[in-house]
Amino acid sequence: MITLTTDFGGADWFAGAMKGVILRIHPGACVVDITHEIPPGNLKAGAFLLMAGCRFFPKGAVHLAVVDPGVGSDRKAIAVQTANGFFVGPDNGILSWALARDRILAIRQLENPKYFLQPVSRTFHGRDIFAPVAARLDRGLPLARLGRELTEIVRFPWPKAIRQGDEFRGEIVYIDRFGNAITNIEAEMLPTQGASACKVKVGRKLQCRLREFYRAAPENKPVALIGSTELLEIAVNGGSAAERFKLKIGEKVVVRQ
Amino acid sequence: MITLTTDFGGADWFAGAMKGVILRIHPGACVVDITHEIPPGNLKAGAFLLMAGCRFFPKGAVHLAVVDPGVGSDRKAIAVQTANGFFVGPDNGILSWALARDRILAIRQLENPKYFLQPVSRTFHGRDIFAPVAARLDRGLPLARLGRELTEIVRFPWPKAIRQGDEFRGEIVYIDRFGNAITNIEAEMLPTQGASACKVKVGRKLQCRLREFYRAAPENKPVALIGSTELLEIAVNGGSAAERFKLKIGEKVVVRQ
Amino acid sequence: MITLTTDFGGADWFAGAMKGVILRIHPGACVVDITHEIPPGNLKAGAFLLMAGCRFFPKGAVHLAVVDPGVGSDRKAIAVQTANGFFVGPDNGILSWALARDRILAIRQLENPKYFLQPVSRTFHGRDIFAPVAARLDRGLPLARLGRELTEIVRFPWPKAIRQGDEFRGEIVYIDRFGNAITNIEAEMLPTQGASACKVKVGRKLQCRLREFYRAAPENKPVALIGSTELLEIAVNGGSAAERFKLKIGEKVVVRQ
Repeated sequence: MITLTTDFGGADWFAGAMKGVILRIHPGACVVDITHEIPPGNLKAGAFLLMAGCRFFPKGAVHLAVVDPGVGSDRKAIAVQTANGFFVGPDNGILSWALARDRILAIRQLENPKYFLQPVSRTFHGRDIFAPVAARLDRGLPLARLGRELTEIVRFPWPKAIRQGDEFRGEIVYIDRFGNAITNIEAEMLPTQGASACKVKVGRKLQCRLREFYRAAPENKPVALIGSTELLEIAVNGGSAAERFKLKIGEKVVVRQ
Repeated sequence: MITLTTDFGGADWFAGAMKGVILRIHPGACVVDITHEIPPGNLKAGAFLLMAGCRFFPKGAVHLAVVDPGVGSDRKAIAVQTANGFFVGPDNGILSWALARDRILAIRQLENPKYFLQPVSRTFHGRDIFAPVAARLDRGLPLARLGRELTEIVRFPWPKAIRQGDEFRGEIVYIDRFGNAITNIEAEMLPTQGASACKVKVGRKLQCRLREFYRAAPENKPVALIGSTELLEIAVNGGSAAERFKLKIGEKVVVRQ
Repeated sequence: MITLTTDFGGADWFAGAMKGVILRIHPGACVVDITHEIPPGNLKAGAFLLMAGCRFFPKGAVHLAVVDPGVGSDRKAIAVQTANGFFVGPDNGILSWALARDRILAIRQLENPKYFLQPVSRTFHGRDIFAPVAARLDRGLPLARLGRELTEIVRFPWPKAIRQGDEFRGEIVYIDRFGNAITNIEAEMLPTQGASACKVKVGRKLQCRLREFYRAAPENKPVALIGSTELLEIAVNGGSAAERFKLKIGEKVVVRQ
């Protein structure tokens, strides 16, 4: 099984071409889209989406992620084997948050041209390098054949939320289609006792209570809750929190007991 | 075979996570998207899309539909077996129009936690309840294992068009990507003889003739016809009727012989 | 394997219905989307996308393309066998650029109703004619069964770029999601020696150098390069060339050595 997470969009032929290349090499492959709608070139959105999506797939799956503004330059191409599967993509940080939650077994640079689609373009390594390598890993090619071992790769530090006395301080890291603002404040940081007494604030824009589900708030009112990624999120029951309160990625969020 | 009809959009990881969960439980599953672009929380649009899309799939298919603003509250989760297949989703009306065209054999509440993805979140039952149940039904799990039998579920009444003398009165129920306004006036209501004499009106906005296909109208002119769902629709040849005439869901449509 | 290239969008049930019909006829079919986001009715965008996407798929694949504003009128429906596979769609030019790069073995009109979904609507031949025919070709139905042989089909002339002395003159033929403006100037026209001395101009809007990859230009500056379809394209490193310079399809592009 191969998953795809890219910024190629649905309107062009890029994702289709990657699938064609995969299926030419590995006709029985099961290829599943996580998303192709990462905002163009947005590595952190890609890193978040890959982390959020990849862990529900079967063990051994190959996760192919391509947001690649540096394609054709000297940024490396890599494949990583973890306790849960394989990750393939450019070495620009896009894999970092998915890898941070996993045990890394080996990292290889993609440099063996035998496993690429020839001739390799300078503008579409998703098709020419990453897709063929993913197809071959899914067919069982040993990682070691791909190129030299690497010990360091580009990593984005996860913007860890912190505790200060009775307060937990974090920030908005992602805004989803429903306008829910997902923060970096992890469920396990928060008190399990008395959670419903917690107040959540975003600057002077918004203050609400921690509840268990969206409808626990009155219609059109804000509510904070633990979302499906085990992160605190801020929502509006029946509406978009991001639109209503003009929430942006990076804004500070404070939880007070 | 499992079909997916949701409001999760293509930009986030939600649909991907559901597919991952299905494939973990049932690696050989054939998962097909009907759409993930239902407007967020719009149950009636979801009910229409599911009804329109599901009937072209093979008998026995499992149709999973998730528009679920009440997720985590006390709304029920259900699975329904019909003469044509299975339907899985929240009990909030989203299944109603698809079920209205089908013969219902059994309805069960989803309450057996053994068939869920644990721990079950309070915000994403698509992933934690509906996807695992759909995967198991597709693998052959008997419906009766899922929970108690139900006799009543939430149903939206279909806004039936009516006949008054020489007139047929209905309304716009869906607007598609091309700007075609689909009504609730069914093909079989209309006269087969002399159909081309029928005049179709939307208030004072628009008047046109009933024709057989889009190009039967002059370029950029409105035309009414029987669309591919066997419902009367209003189109503009080479353009968008919805944009051109500012058509909205719920607007009254009259056909006069 | 069957690929789909349509203007049906992702929001409605049209693409899903086509897949359902295919899978009813051919349950083991591998159906892959190239795109469903061709602008409604835009035959040339469809022709470009099909040409760009189809050639990465395995030999023998069936490529189904539907942009069909004339559906239900007297435009023909066709299937074409080439050295690389099959192409199915309306005879309105949408197949032309894909076919121009391939060796045509046979062309048949789709007129044998036995291979259609009955009753055939007048507004959705994608579902009723093209999908069932594609499914049957993928299962091995001989092309000759579909209907009479044709020798002429609708073809869009490819707007070939020309050389005038030291200049190559072409135009923008497609703008992709990243805002890259793809031209009709083919890589093989351009000098391989001294390519980096080439200047590329779009009227008075934009002048830049030919480079090898996006990052070869300074951040936010324009750059021309040979894109992944072997065509000259104009990009902005880290931005959208189309937005920044208001580039449009059809605008003239000149390369000077």
